[in-house]
Amino acid sequence: MAVYSHMTMSLDGYIADPDDGIGELFGWYGAGDVTVPGADEHTAFQVDADSAELLRGVLAGTGALVCGRRLFDLTNGWNDDHPIGAPVVVVTHNVPQDAATRPRTTFAGDVAEGIARAKEIAGDEDVCVASADIARQALDLGLVDEVVVSLVPVLLGAGIPYFAGLTGAPHRFDDPVVIQGRGATHLRYRVRR
Amino acid sequence: MAVYSHMTMSLDGYIADPDDGIGELFGWYGAGDVTVPGADEHTAFQVDADSAELLRGVLAGTGALVCGRRLFDLTNGWNDDHPIGAPVVVVTHNVPQDAATRPRTTFAGDVAEGIARAKEIAGDEDVCVASADIARQALDLGLVDEVVVSLVPVLLGAGIPYFAGLTGAPHRFDDPVVIQGRGATHLRYRVRR
Repeated sequence: MAVYSHMTMSLDGYIADPDDGIGELFGWYGAGDVTVPGADEHTAFQVDADSAELLRGVLAGTGALVCGRRLFDLTNGWNDDHPIGAPVVVVTHNVPQDAATRPRTTFAGDVAEGIARAKEIAGDEDVCVASADIARQALDLGLVDEVVVSLVPVLLGAGIPYFAGLTGAPHRFDDPVVIQGRGATHLRYRVRR
Repeated sequence: MAVYSHMTMSLDGYIADPDDGIGELFGWYGAGDVTVPGADEHTAFQVDADSAELLRGVLAGTGALVCGRRLFDLTNGWNDDHPIGAPVVVVTHNVPQDAATRPRTTFAGDVAEGIARAKEIAGDEDVCVASADIARQALDLGLVDEVVVSLVPVLLGAGIPYFAGLTGAPHRFDDPVVIQGRGATHLRYRVRR
């Protein structure tokens, strides 16, 4: 099992535009004719065959997700039912009042605790770090094994960065496994210790 | 013939560290056992076979380079003898006093003029934009045909960005031609009009 982060990122390093928009970035999730089912009947991706290979691996192997409070609030915690089907650990200092109504969501006080809880939940499966700010902190803490970037051929010029504010850099990776999909170049890096 | 930019860039978008250092980035130029000769007997690269393919294409096809005044000053204008063997056009408002002693260097007052002069010099060959700030302005002016990025598997955390300050974004590219070298993933994008 591994702790990995996966983000879709523009060539200039943004995971969303300044207003959290993902229109220029998430096209690859619908750019092909291979259907990859999500965890329930409401979720499916339509990707090219090569991106499907990446996506199936991600969906099948992930036993828990870790995200930050901002993403939790933006998505209403995926209504306690994340599309990839795994339980979610939210890193936050303020546990929401309706926490008891979210049996598949766990709240942790800091990044190290969040990753530790997610590893317990995932067991033999992988932990996915789903928020950029948590991924950055986990990288700086040495808690990330793999960084996956779906690199989109666009320059946004401005937006929300994936890797800003690292305090433990440089972080060095092995050369990536590369899958060229339609609308994204998927790069899978192993973090060097 | 095409106008292209080529930069070696960290995964977080930097072409040098904050002190202009390139130690974490330029390792791929010496990471293999295939010798690619430069334009003269003093210059040679030792790269892997896949990176050699990229580098030979760049070296053979480039008829002129365009750079900014900062890079010109940093390198002393490559002593009027750029390692890839092509004449250089420098974009600057202040022509240096020793310009007459530099027969293979041309000075232009702005980016559009610099690219135009370089195209005249290159003839049927390609024009390489060698400075990030010139590449950004040329992209915003619609004067770049191809963007080549040698993406290095490292997060620097800080440094000199390749793509900061674009005013004409989003710029959209076709999916890249990918060459996985040792120490760099070479991505060649065609700019969409």
